[in-house]
Amino acid sequence: MAFPHRHLLGIAGLQPWEIEFLLDEAEQWVDLNRQATKHDDRLAGLTLINAFFENSTRTLLSFEIAGKRLGADVVNMHAAQSSVKKGETLIDTAVTLNSMRADAIVIRHGSSGAVQLIADKVGCPVLNAGDGTHEHPTQALLDSLTIRRRKGQIAGLRVAICGDILHSRVARSNMICLSTLGADVRVAGPPALMPPAVESMGGTPCRNFAEALEGADVVMMLRLQNERMQGQFIPSPREFRHLYGLTDAKLALAKPDALVMHPGPMNRGIEIDSHIADNVQRSAITDQVEMGVAMRMACLDVLTRRRRGVEGWA
Amino acid sequence: MAFPHRHLLGIAGLQPWEIEFLLDEAEQWVDLNRQATKHDDRLAGLTLINAFFENSTRTLLSFEIAGKRLGADVVNMHAAQSSVKKGETLIDTAVTLNSMRADAIVIRHGSSGAVQLIADKVGCPVLNAGDGTHEHPTQALLDSLTIRRRKGQIAGLRVAICGDILHSRVARSNMICLSTLGADVRVAGPPALMPPAVESMGGTPCRNFAEALEGADVVMMLRLQNERMQGQFIPSPREFRHLYGLTDAKLALAKPDALVMHPGPMNRGIEIDSHIADNVQRSAITDQVEMGVAMRMACLDVLTRRRRGVEGWA
Amino acid sequence: MAFPHRHLLGIAGLQPWEIEFLLDEAEQWVDLNRQATKHDDRLAGLTLINAFFENSTRTLLSFEIAGKRLGADVVNMHAAQSSVKKGETLIDTAVTLNSMRADAIVIRHGSSGAVQLIADKVGCPVLNAGDGTHEHPTQALLDSLTIRRRKGQIAGLRVAICGDILHSRVARSNMICLSTLGADVRVAGPPALMPPAVESMGGTPCRNFAEALEGADVVMMLRLQNERMQGQFIPSPREFRHLYGLTDAKLALAKPDALVMHPGPMNRGIEIDSHIADNVQRSAITDQVEMGVAMRMACLDVLTRRRRGVEGWA
Repeated sequence: MAFPHRHLLGIAGLQPWEIEFLLDEAEQWVDLNRQATKHDDRLAGLTLINAFFENSTRTLLSFEIAGKRLGADVVNMHAAQSSVKKGETLIDTAVTLNSMRADAIVIRHGSSGAVQLIADKVGCPVLNAGDGTHEHPTQALLDSLTIRRRKGQIAGLRVAICGDILHSRVARSNMICLSTLGADVRVAGPPALMPPAVESMGGTPCRNFAEALEGADVVMMLRLQNERMQGQFIPSPREFRHLYGLTDAKLALAKPDALVMHPGPMNRGIEIDSHIADNVQRSAITDQVEMGVAMRMACLDVLTRRRRGVEGWA
Repeated sequence: MAFPHRHLLGIAGLQPWEIEFLLDEAEQWVDLNRQATKHDDRLAGLTLINAFFENSTRTLLSFEIAGKRLGADVVNMHAAQSSVKKGETLIDTAVTLNSMRADAIVIRHGSSGAVQLIADKVGCPVLNAGDGTHEHPTQALLDSLTIRRRKGQIAGLRVAICGDILHSRVARSNMICLSTLGADVRVAGPPALMPPAVESMGGTPCRNFAEALEGADVVMMLRLQNERMQGQFIPSPREFRHLYGLTDAKLALAKPDALVMHPGPMNRGIEIDSHIADNVQRSAITDQVEMGVAMRMACLDVLTRRRRGVEGWA
Repeated sequence: MAFPHRHLLGIAGLQPWEIEFLLDEAEQWVDLNRQATKHDDRLAGLTLINAFFENSTRTLLSFEIAGKRLGADVVNMHAAQSSVKKGETLIDTAVTLNSMRADAIVIRHGSSGAVQLIADKVGCPVLNAGDGTHEHPTQALLDSLTIRRRKGQIAGLRVAICGDILHSRVARSNMICLSTLGADVRVAGPPALMPPAVESMGGTPCRNFAEALEGADVVMMLRLQNERMQGQFIPSPREFRHLYGLTDAKLALAKPDALVMHPGPMNRGIEIDSHIADNVQRSAITDQVEMGVAMRMACLDVLTRRRRGVEGWA
């Protein structure tokens, strides 16, 4: 099957088999990355530009490693040093990257929709590495890959997503991805941090954390993003932990073998207690990071097949 | 013909055939960069250091991509993180880069002459990526390449360069380059932003924009560099647009098929109206970016031939 | 002989033959780096992460060039853009880098012991690129390599280390390294900048600069690290030069052929007079930079042999 999309801008709009296809593709890269030498030359001679208008060490590192392991010429554009500061419009930046003959552009931007705007202006595949409060598709894909590998399948699982849902593109992409794959996604957070449209994204809003956690196969905690809070009344860190942090008592509401996840970086002792995060049996947090590189290798490979003339993708 | 210069510090001092030689060399890289895979290994095993003491996303990206596409090991030195901040002299930095056995060093610096200072101290080719208000030779070369490809030749063309001439190393390098190649270069800008020595650089100063534009084959707009203004009386953005911005009315003074250029990043609506910049027939702005990578590949290739032992360059 | 250590966290704990082994290994890379093309593929397919929590252009450049010349996929993590700023713990960062399947991690950190903390949590070799006031082992190794090449051997030499000893991980690593290799290491600095435990690190504290310099074969000056001074009463730059700066008069106390060294970046005219630094016969300062790249190549090669399955290292 050829993946019919030119870009990866979000999970919304992807069919279940398209998501499964990307997850299947990632498996080979999980295997490769566990070898002593981990390199493939299929992107040799292609130029990958990581254009990060918002700082993100983990996601940038993950994409940079993914591109380099596939043999691409990888260059990073840091917004802090960029002509964006000189007043250049986003579209001019996009056109510039395109004119340098990029073969794939990975973009993180603080504004929802900015990545789509760029994708409309360039001739090469664009991968959304997080835009505002909109989507973060590779995060959802790597989370699904992590769950599928640990639980065997996703359909039929009960997944609790807890925390600052409103500001979280991770929550949004995951709600869409997991519900598309047939999971029962239950969502909880402080009332001021719950968006109105949870159901339209495939989630079921819960009145409280306990309701979301009950019988969960997977507990996905989110980062408390203090830097995004503006005007909302939010609990103090201590109150937050009491009400919405993952403690032993709360985790006991989930299934005994429930998987614990967090996209990182963690605020230990606020949204998740340290010994839960560090429990190798329960926590899949390091798996998520590992799957991230593999998942991004899969996306870069798949999206560049057409221009590489891979058979069946012309 | 072997290019007889060790460094590329400026256009001043280059013979017409030397400039033409570099333009000719760039053509192969334009072709390569339009392929699906764009890579050549001739700089494999060579170390290219991009030492940028002044931020410049576009030029840095362009040189980084150029180096990587030629197979070099490319490292960037960002001044903001550099020992320059610890009080190291520029010459010590140069000697350090040299001692690491760089095979080519690309330098951008805020002070005119700084790149020459470094070139005098190192054993490898130095490429000036812009120094103060002095020169920006690869910009002038890519502009000439763009013009030559769109107009067939440069000799005999009338080129108008408009804007903040005083602070513009782009204007300076272009005046020298285009006049050396036989163009009639006419220069206009706010009186406070016109340098006294336009004629010594090969340009003809005009009393106003209209005079410069009349019958022009090429209209080259410059960026209004607010960050460089110190003490000069300059018009407001609105006045600037009125007097020196490229509008339809002003462009009508040039030849009907006049080519519009801008080195970027653009202040849309100030020095150039958006619909002119975006007019695919008239505007060569995206071409300039594309030619930039090819031109820098040519310069890196040519200047490292001697040390690579290429026949005829020993 | 197989190097029996998994990490390179400091010189303390290394046996003399282990240090000599690393110095011997570096010689081949000095030779390679003097070739026209300087590349080896033994780290191809391995991922090297340079995680710098403290800015350091020179050391980062040196490790980046070393990794790239050996064919590794090299990625830099800049702390200033890192999730460390979002409150992530150092250990979480370490676990993240590890989960991305790094094959070697180079770390610089402002806190003594931070590198050990990371090394305890990861499955790959960790190289200390400087941690607080603790150690900077590759600097000491490159200094020893420089001395060995210029003086033929280290055992029996009298080495004077002068300056801000208290804050200097360079001084600490060098005292341990040089004394382990049999040198007589004499140490001098402003009383407020002399640590109490010089002798336990293999140095002999001197009452003044003259005593340390007398009959020295090697004079190693340190950088006056104003940025690390907190509360200590220290001389003004002018006083510092008078008392502890290397001038002709002071250098005359050393042997006539004494080698002058400085780890850079230099404060010319404070800790060292310019004409002494620039005296090609006496000064080994540029040698040190050159040896740095070779030494780091050796360390990266040796420490990754086990995982690369090099015979005799399994």
